[in-house]
Amino acid sequence: MSPKLTGADVAQHSSADSCWVIVHGRAYDVTEFLPEHPGGSKIILKYAGKDATEEFDPIHPRDTLDKYLDRSKHLGEVDMQTVKVEAKDEDPEEAARLERIERMPPLEQCYNLMDFEAVARNVMKKTAWAYYSSGADDEITMRENHSAFHKVWFRPRVLVDVEKVDMSTTMLGTKVDIPFYVTATALGKLGHAEGEVCLTKGARKHNVIQMIPTLASCSFDEIMDAAEPGQVQWLQLYVNKNREITKKIVEHAEARGCKGLFITVDAPQLGRREKDMRSKFSDTGSNVQAQSGDNVDRSQGAARAISSFIDPGLSWKDIPWFLSITKMPIILKGVQRVEDVLRAIEVGVHGVVLSNHGGRQLDTARSGIEVLAEVMPVLRQQGLETAIEIYIDGGVRRATDILKALCLGAKGVGIGRPFLFAMSAYGLAGVDRAMALLKEEMEMNMRLIGAASIADLNPGLVDARGLMGGHVQTVPVDTLGLSAYDALSGPREQARHAAAEKGGMGPKAKL
Amino acid sequence: MSPKLTGADVAQHSSADSCWVIVHGRAYDVTEFLPEHPGGSKIILKYAGKDATEEFDPIHPRDTLDKYLDRSKHLGEVDMQTVKVEAKDEDPEEAARLERIERMPPLEQCYNLMDFEAVARNVMKKTAWAYYSSGADDEITMRENHSAFHKVWFRPRVLVDVEKVDMSTTMLGTKVDIPFYVTATALGKLGHAEGEVCLTKGARKHNVIQMIPTLASCSFDEIMDAAEPGQVQWLQLYVNKNREITKKIVEHAEARGCKGLFITVDAPQLGRREKDMRSKFSDTGSNVQAQSGDNVDRSQGAARAISSFIDPGLSWKDIPWFLSITKMPIILKGVQRVEDVLRAIEVGVHGVVLSNHGGRQLDTARSGIEVLAEVMPVLRQQGLETAIEIYIDGGVRRATDILKALCLGAKGVGIGRPFLFAMSAYGLAGVDRAMALLKEEMEMNMRLIGAASIADLNPGLVDARGLMGGHVQTVPVDTLGLSAYDALSGPREQARHAAAEKGGMGPKAKL
Amino acid sequence: MSPKLTGADVAQHSSADSCWVIVHGRAYDVTEFLPEHPGGSKIILKYAGKDATEEFDPIHPRDTLDKYLDRSKHLGEVDMQTVKVEAKDEDPEEAARLERIERMPPLEQCYNLMDFEAVARNVMKKTAWAYYSSGADDEITMRENHSAFHKVWFRPRVLVDVEKVDMSTTMLGTKVDIPFYVTATALGKLGHAEGEVCLTKGARKHNVIQMIPTLASCSFDEIMDAAEPGQVQWLQLYVNKNREITKKIVEHAEARGCKGLFITVDAPQLGRREKDMRSKFSDTGSNVQAQSGDNVDRSQGAARAISSFIDPGLSWKDIPWFLSITKMPIILKGVQRVEDVLRAIEVGVHGVVLSNHGGRQLDTARSGIEVLAEVMPVLRQQGLETAIEIYIDGGVRRATDILKALCLGAKGVGIGRPFLFAMSAYGLAGVDRAMALLKEEMEMNMRLIGAASIADLNPGLVDARGLMGGHVQTVPVDTLGLSAYDALSGPREQARHAAAEKGGMGPKAKL
Amino acid sequence: MSPKLTGADVAQHSSADSCWVIVHGRAYDVTEFLPEHPGGSKIILKYAGKDATEEFDPIHPRDTLDKYLDRSKHLGEVDMQTVKVEAKDEDPEEAARLERIERMPPLEQCYNLMDFEAVARNVMKKTAWAYYSSGADDEITMRENHSAFHKVWFRPRVLVDVEKVDMSTTMLGTKVDIPFYVTATALGKLGHAEGEVCLTKGARKHNVIQMIPTLASCSFDEIMDAAEPGQVQWLQLYVNKNREITKKIVEHAEARGCKGLFITVDAPQLGRREKDMRSKFSDTGSNVQAQSGDNVDRSQGAARAISSFIDPGLSWKDIPWFLSITKMPIILKGVQRVEDVLRAIEVGVHGVVLSNHGGRQLDTARSGIEVLAEVMPVLRQQGLETAIEIYIDGGVRRATDILKALCLGAKGVGIGRPFLFAMSAYGLAGVDRAMALLKEEMEMNMRLIGAASIADLNPGLVDARGLMGGHVQTVPVDTLGLSAYDALSGPREQARHAAAEKGGMGPKAKL
Repeated sequence: MSPKLTGADVAQHSSADSCWVIVHGRAYDVTEFLPEHPGGSKIILKYAGKDATEEFDPIHPRDTLDKYLDRSKHLGEVDMQTVKVEAKDEDPEEAARLERIERMPPLEQCYNLMDFEAVARNVMKKTAWAYYSSGADDEITMRENHSAFHKVWFRPRVLVDVEKVDMSTTMLGTKVDIPFYVTATALGKLGHAEGEVCLTKGARKHNVIQMIPTLASCSFDEIMDAAEPGQVQWLQLYVNKNREITKKIVEHAEARGCKGLFITVDAPQLGRREKDMRSKFSDTGSNVQAQSGDNVDRSQGAARAISSFIDPGLSWKDIPWFLSITKMPIILKGVQRVEDVLRAIEVGVHGVVLSNHGGRQLDTARSGIEVLAEVMPVLRQQGLETAIEIYIDGGVRRATDILKALCLGAKGVGIGRPFLFAMSAYGLAGVDRAMALLKEEMEMNMRLIGAASIADLNPGLVDARGLMGGHVQTVPVDTLGLSAYDALSGPREQARHAAAEKGGMGPKAKL
Repeated sequence: MSPKLTGADVAQHSSADSCWVIVHGRAYDVTEFLPEHPGGSKIILKYAGKDATEEFDPIHPRDTLDKYLDRSKHLGEVDMQTVKVEAKDEDPEEAARLERIERMPPLEQCYNLMDFEAVARNVMKKTAWAYYSSGADDEITMRENHSAFHKVWFRPRVLVDVEKVDMSTTMLGTKVDIPFYVTATALGKLGHAEGEVCLTKGARKHNVIQMIPTLASCSFDEIMDAAEPGQVQWLQLYVNKNREITKKIVEHAEARGCKGLFITVDAPQLGRREKDMRSKFSDTGSNVQAQSGDNVDRSQGAARAISSFIDPGLSWKDIPWFLSITKMPIILKGVQRVEDVLRAIEVGVHGVVLSNHGGRQLDTARSGIEVLAEVMPVLRQQGLETAIEIYIDGGVRRATDILKALCLGAKGVGIGRPFLFAMSAYGLAGVDRAMALLKEEMEMNMRLIGAASIADLNPGLVDARGLMGGHVQTVPVDTLGLSAYDALSGPREQARHAAAEKGGMGPKAKL
Repeated sequence: MSPKLTGADVAQHSSADSCWVIVHGRAYDVTEFLPEHPGGSKIILKYAGKDATEEFDPIHPRDTLDKYLDRSKHLGEVDMQTVKVEAKDEDPEEAARLERIERMPPLEQCYNLMDFEAVARNVMKKTAWAYYSSGADDEITMRENHSAFHKVWFRPRVLVDVEKVDMSTTMLGTKVDIPFYVTATALGKLGHAEGEVCLTKGARKHNVIQMIPTLASCSFDEIMDAAEPGQVQWLQLYVNKNREITKKIVEHAEARGCKGLFITVDAPQLGRREKDMRSKFSDTGSNVQAQSGDNVDRSQGAARAISSFIDPGLSWKDIPWFLSITKMPIILKGVQRVEDVLRAIEVGVHGVVLSNHGGRQLDTARSGIEVLAEVMPVLRQQGLETAIEIYIDGGVRRATDILKALCLGAKGVGIGRPFLFAMSAYGLAGVDRAMALLKEEMEMNMRLIGAASIADLNPGLVDARGLMGGHVQTVPVDTLGLSAYDALSGPREQARHAAAEKGGMGPKAKL
Repeated sequence: MSPKLTGADVAQHSSADSCWVIVHGRAYDVTEFLPEHPGGSKIILKYAGKDATEEFDPIHPRDTLDKYLDRSKHLGEVDMQTVKVEAKDEDPEEAARLERIERMPPLEQCYNLMDFEAVARNVMKKTAWAYYSSGADDEITMRENHSAFHKVWFRPRVLVDVEKVDMSTTMLGTKVDIPFYVTATALGKLGHAEGEVCLTKGARKHNVIQMIPTLASCSFDEIMDAAEPGQVQWLQLYVNKNREITKKIVEHAEARGCKGLFITVDAPQLGRREKDMRSKFSDTGSNVQAQSGDNVDRSQGAARAISSFIDPGLSWKDIPWFLSITKMPIILKGVQRVEDVLRAIEVGVHGVVLSNHGGRQLDTARSGIEVLAEVMPVLRQQGLETAIEIYIDGGVRRATDILKALCLGAKGVGIGRPFLFAMSAYGLAGVDRAMALLKEEMEMNMRLIGAASIADLNPGLVDARGLMGGHVQTVPVDTLGLSAYDALSGPREQARHAAAEKGGMGPKAKL
């Protein structure tokens, strides 16, 4: 066994000419890798000769260096006692955040999925929050995703026996407790040290399916390993320009027991998310963005950095090949118009997810629930409503949202950010409670609309006309008129002495 | 006569093993009752060995202990002089509330029903306010209930002789002064010491009907007893899993002279009201929530606590039985779709209330006025518009709201919270004024739409197209664009000296 | 000539048993009149034995005492030197108002009609502002009146020769410079000492017609006298229960040269205006409200006080009688549905004003412009579009509003409050500028829509579909979701030193 | 060579009787020109006998004095050393602005076109900002222009090969990199010393066309001279009452190589822009507004001042003459209804711009994108969709806006203010970045809607129903109801000590 390297040894290689970095106690020579780094060389050079673990971890699965860096560049263990720990600058924003964490609300005070988001916003690192919470352009689609559910209202049946409510269903043949799955979201370790594995455990506890993201912080195998026997997982796939790599991923997933392949079709290029870009600006340290070397704009955000391998040339022609390399059911994730659903049926895939990628790709793309309302009547008209499984994701926050989607014809819904926020704020306990709250809401709401089982859900239970009339934007506000208007106000409190003179009345007398 | 118990006697029984409590000067052994308490044992144990009267009162009718606790557990009178009075913690919120009560606006400053709500919000106990004012989930339906009336506009007739306006009508055969009734709302003593009896008196004064709630703070008989001879009352019924209990209640009500049986059909389970749940969190004392013993989440709110007896299995099959056990007219309260109105006619009941339970049950359920606009054209088309009496409730705040409902075909409307708020703030005087204001508005507005009597109201007097187009949600706001916009502002005041130089003009000259 | 009375003489009669008051230097014995006073006796008794001029003036035309108080009760002149001047209480609100008047914006800073309202709100007496600015109930119709114009958009023609623009038209045969008239509004002296006469002068200057209100602060003859030769005025009529009085008024108006009789048909009872009522509460002094003696609620506002004579029994049957007693054209003011326009044509009147009385009567009554859009297609279909002159009023603030009304078929529009506000803030100069601004806007906008004359206006120049779909109310706001949302923000300013290090750029370099 | 004049020489001519001014170091006798000055004589007299360069520059092209002032009045050079420099008053607003400039955000922090506007608002001179940012009346149309794009949503195609995206197209035969052009906007030097020439350079860099404004601060030739060989420019034309002047301008433009003549047809009179007028009020110095001599209202704003030559008589009859005097393609700029597009085709022009002049002319005129949605279906129905090139402008801020216009049938879009704001804040670098951002957005968004080239864009890619239903204005807000409502709030933070007792959880544990 060779002797350990010292901090001083590594520190000598601190330039683009010779660049060593330490990750998890081991040194690596990344000099030749610098120009290939998807996040740009600058971000690596910031850590040249130093320990980069903290920066490396949330963005790279554990096996990244093994997979992508030639063994000859693995320089072996470092005696971490000899590595100088750099003093960090005082950051008043970070200090304030740590204070907020001290005071964060107890978990039991979260009564719905929005509550986790409110807490997460206060306690997450700024850049992590920006990455998770951001959407494309003006974030209109991102917000529309949830608000679109408010265009659908219930027409409940009364006097139905709902003593026993069964909210279980099947998705791609798997029996689940409730019709949602944990959809794929990237970089889970930004929010919580455990990363996606935390979601695996939550999904197990509530018997729902987890979709494993291509861009996970944990490696695929770590996430599979975290599952208990019999627990079902799916794989979300960004298709690599190099189809051999893709093929290996797919075959490996199938071999490991994955039960569904969700090919993302709405991301030939990952979106511009300005909130993310802005948060990166003053923080070259977390600057993982560039697509082409050192001179790129230093503010592209995490999304662009990690996605350069995705093939923008992916097209319908590729689908038969996918069908040929796996027996897993194939689902197209990100379909957004009825024409493409019909084509998906024709081409023989097993499902589609009507999705706009959480509002992170194309702004003013329509919500999944709206596309669903466009798709299902056409399918029914053509007798195709069972030809394929239809899922939606985006904006699901309440069990009522799930019910609306199912009434309109979805097989299930994907939920992403809410579980990330629950995890970021409270870890597994947060994920567990978030799912438990959904079940509690679901049971109650099925009772209240008069449905004892998923099979009872149907379009007659909702009024979805609000989705039919196009997107409403009101006339810009009449500033002058409004500010001249003297709004009505309620009764005024009395001055104290006046009240005293009058003597007690009403509630006062009651005390 | 046995000697009185002392405080010390009772204080010895302060655990789950032996639990005595004092209520209204009498001791009770509730040890065996602990596991059966609908509100959970924890809340009782907090008062084990102590006086629980203050906590007991608003939630339990007087006769509760007589009815549900075996005589053998009634331990007799306690010498209250010997009972230690516990010092209460100082509570700055409560102190601020008491100060607000000192300054509360005089009753005559309330000019409409919203005014009572504004005052009540300031002067009610936090938990009582939370129980009354809360709705399901995001409280969207709760607010929609009133705002839906703003989708209906008037088409008044002019040049009609309206010197004499008669706003009286009949409901289930009873002549009333104005077409509203006091609908059933639970736990009246949370707002006012007198509870539902206060509403009885108000209803009498204005000759309108009171619907007595199953979950009243006062007992059914107390409320009946408070009525004057000839005063008509109805009973709202939550159907018990044990039909024998239900039968007794119905027969008793009929025997006592109740003139209508309103069976609640929209509450197989009482709703989650997060505002209520949140208000309970820090207050185990008022924690009356659990459904199954001690380990329940301590924040379910009052509603869940008191409703475990309700039968979620109630269905259309049960209706003939109800028709068989009483001669009172039967009305289904909480119908929400035209299909169920047609079925109600078929099954032979005498009326329906189109209601979403004040927005407390299913969020994004439609408002009563909207369902009415769906129902009546179908009934008219089928010649059934007089086959049944149709009522609505939810969101009625103005006489114009009542008029809109009647124009669209309702026989009358139920009003709940506004009278609770008036009562909570000002007692009977508040209820009286609230009703008087409605009458004043009603008379004026009937004149203004050109209707001299209720019979003159018809659909041609309103434009209800706003209810027909589905639920409108606008495009999420363009944050960046709006914040960059430099809004117009009006004329600017002059600096003082500039004005002085110019000399007086306009109003100044007039002084 | 009898010697003058002294202050001491009058002061002896300061009770309900013997009540004298001084008005404009003369004493009156109003003891017997007390129970008949429409505003209640209380308000008079406050001035018993004292000088009531200041309170009397804005509410009563000069000739009131001559007309309604028997000559025997006119006690003659008072030596005002001998009348004690009462010290007024310091009123901080009033002091603040006087300060605001010192700083009020110069007139030239008012660029539109809203600007006058903004200034008036700051400088008018609270009760006067409340009387002018208030509307019925929630003031929804009052605001809808203007905002409804924003539902109508232009479809301008280009490349039309608009060098010369002629905006003159005729109304009931009178040629006017621009198609608006000054509509009738009550109690002009509340806003300005000169009262309605100020509007007479403004109307003259701009050659538009003034409609004289029944409830003017100036007497009818004062207003007629203020007109210059050839200046046209109309009369707005509230019909008295005593038709003889009404007949006298009509005949007198015709004799004096009035050119149009506008019978108000939307006010069988004057509306409840809560802002007005609330402002009166603490001010018994200006308490002119009661309908039946002393014990009335002391907060009914000015409107109710002055209107008890109005006949709520007025009906279509009365119209032939009006046609028989005058040769003036008769116009029904306040028609609100197409059916009543058709009936007006049938009954033979000469015009209608589609109006909701400035939103002061029935809340959620439709705007004039909306009713117009309902009426005209029906008239055109029946070939009746020229059978009658159609006017609208309510919410007109911009020349574009006038143009929209005329495009849709109105002959002209009435404007009320804006001139009151201009007058209240700046007197005649304000009224003059307000009208001049409208003319300036009108000329420009006729050019911009490609209309060289009023005859060029037609429905094809507007897109009025926004008026056709009913009244839109959006789904209640998703409070939790919105507050959890982290809105986008623009670029952040740099800390000062950072900018300094970087050196100048952009605009900085330019300085 | 004559000796230079001195400051004292000039200072002697400081009245209306003899008025000399210095501009760029040369003296001019403008005494006789005073009454003809479009901006009124007052503004010149303010500088009588003084140096007027600073005021003169942004509003007048360099060659103005040569063109419009007789040679005999050019008095020759002034020795500027002898001219007294006037101390300026301290202006706290201006001082604050200069401070804001010190701290202005670095250019790279601008991620979209709205960001430039936000910065410009902070750093531009108040009057310049007011001139650029203002719109007609209530600025409703100005804001609608952008918000109308939010009524159009995408229906993207997935699984299209978008590896290579070609966003180039042709406009009037010229190949451009991206389908927008820099539309004409007046007075470029108000925002930046270099004026329109700055835009010329930006347009060159990104290979897009610049439209040269009639009312440029730079002279036409300066702007043409600034172009590089082969760079294409168009001319925007306000037609002069004197057609000979117009003819000369057109012929000169053609001779200099202009490739398109855009005749403005929506401005027979330049609009009232109240924000501009208000900003001028206290600043007679920049008071360039009057149309007829000295006594005009001193607050008409820049627009009215510079536009008195425009011919309001321009009509369809004139178009053949234009076609006869030039071979440049003629485009009508400002068409607003389908009827006029059809007429444009009939009359033989080559294109139209559907535009409302940036919301600066007629308020509540419809947006270009809405008119486009009206026009194209009619053209397609009549087989005329290629008969003419259709452009739109107004409100374009995002590449998605451009894509929506092109999907609906536009050949390209004009962008004005955003480049002015970018230039005003950051000069050429700002313009460059603004255009680069649009290209970056455009490439991404074409990928995301599944269009590899401009030819792939078609109406099926958008859902434009939101443009079809008329203009939506919601019911005025229910003030009392809203203020009584107690909105939901999220989980509350704990007091510090409570949290400390509980010990760490969630994120805290992670630290």
